[in-house]
Amino acid sequence: MRALALNATLKPSPQPSSTEALTRVVLDALEEQSVECELVRLVDHDIAPGIVSEAIGDGDEWPALHRKIIAADIVVMATPTWFGRPSSVISRALERMDALLAETDEAGVPVAYNKVAGFVVTGNEDGAHNCIAEMAQAMFDIGFTVPAQAWTYWNKGPGPGEEVYLTTEETAWSQTTGRAAAHNLVAVAHALSVNPIGPPPS
Amino acid sequence: MRALALNATLKPSPQPSSTEALTRVVLDALEEQSVECELVRLVDHDIAPGIVSEAIGDGDEWPALHRKIIAADIVVMATPTWFGRPSSVISRALERMDALLAETDEAGVPVAYNKVAGFVVTGNEDGAHNCIAEMAQAMFDIGFTVPAQAWTYWNKGPGPGEEVYLTTEETAWSQTTGRAAAHNLVAVAHALSVNPIGPPPS
Amino acid sequence: MRALALNATLKPSPQPSSTEALTRVVLDALEEQSVECELVRLVDHDIAPGIVSEAIGDGDEWPALHRKIIAADIVVMATPTWFGRPSSVISRALERMDALLAETDEAGVPVAYNKVAGFVVTGNEDGAHNCIAEMAQAMFDIGFTVPAQAWTYWNKGPGPGEEVYLTTEETAWSQTTGRAAAHNLVAVAHALSVNPIGPPPS
Amino acid sequence: MRALALNATLKPSPQPSSTEALTRVVLDALEEQSVECELVRLVDHDIAPGIVSEAIGDGDEWPALHRKIIAADIVVMATPTWFGRPSSVISRALERMDALLAETDEAGVPVAYNKVAGFVVTGNEDGAHNCIAEMAQAMFDIGFTVPAQAWTYWNKGPGPGEEVYLTTEETAWSQTTGRAAAHNLVAVAHALSVNPIGPPPS
Repeated sequence: MRALALNATLKPSPQPSSTEALTRVVLDALEEQSVECELVRLVDHDIAPGIVSEAIGDGDEWPALHRKIIAADIVVMATPTWFGRPSSVISRALERMDALLAETDEAGVPVAYNKVAGFVVTGNEDGAHNCIAEMAQAMFDIGFTVPAQAWTYWNKGPGPGEEVYLTTEETAWSQTTGRAAAHNLVAVAHALSVNPIGPPPS
Repeated sequence: MRALALNATLKPSPQPSSTEALTRVVLDALEEQSVECELVRLVDHDIAPGIVSEAIGDGDEWPALHRKIIAADIVVMATPTWFGRPSSVISRALERMDALLAETDEAGVPVAYNKVAGFVVTGNEDGAHNCIAEMAQAMFDIGFTVPAQAWTYWNKGPGPGEEVYLTTEETAWSQTTGRAAAHNLVAVAHALSVNPIGPPPS
Repeated sequence: MRALALNATLKPSPQPSSTEALTRVVLDALEEQSVECELVRLVDHDIAPGIVSEAIGDGDEWPALHRKIIAADIVVMATPTWFGRPSSVISRALERMDALLAETDEAGVPVAYNKVAGFVVTGNEDGAHNCIAEMAQAMFDIGFTVPAQAWTYWNKGPGPGEEVYLTTEETAWSQTTGRAAAHNLVAVAHALSVNPIGPPPS
Repeated sequence: MRALALNATLKPSPQPSSTEALTRVVLDALEEQSVECELVRLVDHDIAPGIVSEAIGDGDEWPALHRKIIAADIVVMATPTWFGRPSSVISRALERMDALLAETDEAGVPVAYNKVAGFVVTGNEDGAHNCIAEMAQAMFDIGFTVPAQAWTYWNKGPGPGEEVYLTTEETAWSQTTGRAAAHNLVAVAHALSVNPIGPPPS
């Protein structure tokens, strides 16, 4: 089983990313269940605005990311929080994934069917529930299944300020919740691999 | 397999409900797949505001609804749209369902795990995607799994006006989409019944 | 100048309400600026589901609340957070306020024009930004103006648990922010009283 | 009085943009009221991901856009709809505008105070109310005031398909609503220019 995590921090590598740190908790738990994991920091790649899977102009790196999504059984969408919303970087990836709606296998089954999606959100401020809701809706629109409690988040409580996930001691709930998310992602991905959703009724 | 649909129209029976009409499309498709279906119009019942499964004061009819939810494999949440948001009636039911978070079976598996949730939205005006996102997030928080494309909606296009789902001819897309939702709900409910999510990791 | 605050806690009086405690901070600051304030706990009143200003059946107390809204220059919507969303109690009030869209004065100016709206959110968990966004959209749809930074909130950081606003020491940011909100509500209400929005262009 | 409209279509010039066409309706109405208007198609400019007003690396065109925002009295945010959400292009602009929170004039008044914000949304599919709610929340967080009914939208009704705003005959409601939005934007911008919000209370 394969998992792909897309980290939508605004900060390019090698800057430290809270979102990446919490995503790693989920990926570590997936690896303990023998899932092969890859993590991509989206902002390190040139992704053109648009809604197709094919390259848009020179230098557009989306096609390689599209292939990674197609190859994955589990996709984890990870975003920081700005104004209580997911970042522009995750929105750009979701816009490109809009094209998956029309891509099917030979039997007519949409390519995202029988894949599962999970979510990670960090922020200095409030907004995780809404980020999860927005990303989840886009993912199950495309054809992913969203398992029970397949998310985790961390924020620092009310008001603006430094995002201190990387230095705070108070991350136990976020980590436990992330490990439970990994468990449910594997369970539902497995259930769908044994009994997949078939093509839509004609 | 059993399905329960909760219709959150503001209009008590026997007033006609667009939301109910589109929900029936989903339920009819579920019945064709041998699912035993029940539809409840929430506003016909006295549901006290609160966050517990037990009765709150005299006359609170929630406990009977709670039992129906526990008995169902598939729960369809159906709401009209007001200001682009789900109705107060569906919000009241979701608040009471908050208590499900802490209810588990003997093995420690939350009671909503291995149930699936689908969504129906109608409105005179725009808002369905957001209604679906909000209801879905609440349902997978509680422990339901949300299958690929397990929703349908109808609205009349831009601007306020009469909600004419019951009289318009242009409902083909909403009905086809509703039948596809039923297909996916049954497929994922079946997959989870064969290979259920187990208790969270300790 | 008059302000009306609608507290949408699920808890009837005399139970303590965090939402009410933070709302009082805003009202106290309004009173310091000579605004006459009233606070209503909505759940203490019988409000029928629906979308009209007139009474729906026997016992519906909405008409009295409608009169209070019409008489106010400033309306503060205050809600607890459930699943990252506003409560069913505030949704019910907003549905009834939908009728304000069609109510105008003799010059054809919608009755909510030249009133301003502010927002208070508390919760054990994350969701305030989204609650504010949803309530604000409904209010400016109806015709209220939403001043700069006319809100405050408090939550306890990541994860479920007890809502401890009433006992925690860490409310300074929420209180300072609430006083700034009161300042801006008065400033914009005053600006609109001197130079009101006129009737829509024909 | 000056207005700046930011069009967040994914399509670079000179491709036709429905969002631009509906935004022009609002700008035309503003010009009739002697407002000097400028429209920027964001995707034609290189905007680096980040949260500061200063240039991020070579080629970042944000500082020029920042100056235009500072010079405007009215800012119109215009977006297409993807998955019921605003585009990644408007999200990127809002992230850069986050820096405005900390920018004040000599008297300590945040730079966005006493500016007003309006909204335009187009889409093949449902989502306008939520796009407006999200953009509005970000804008009044930053310090803009959002006047009564300062928005318009268009979509084609339920289901995916071509976005046909540019060819359909059925845009009367969207245009009338856009002209009313322009009226209210000017009225509130004028009211605030005569009686501005002062610095926050200490």
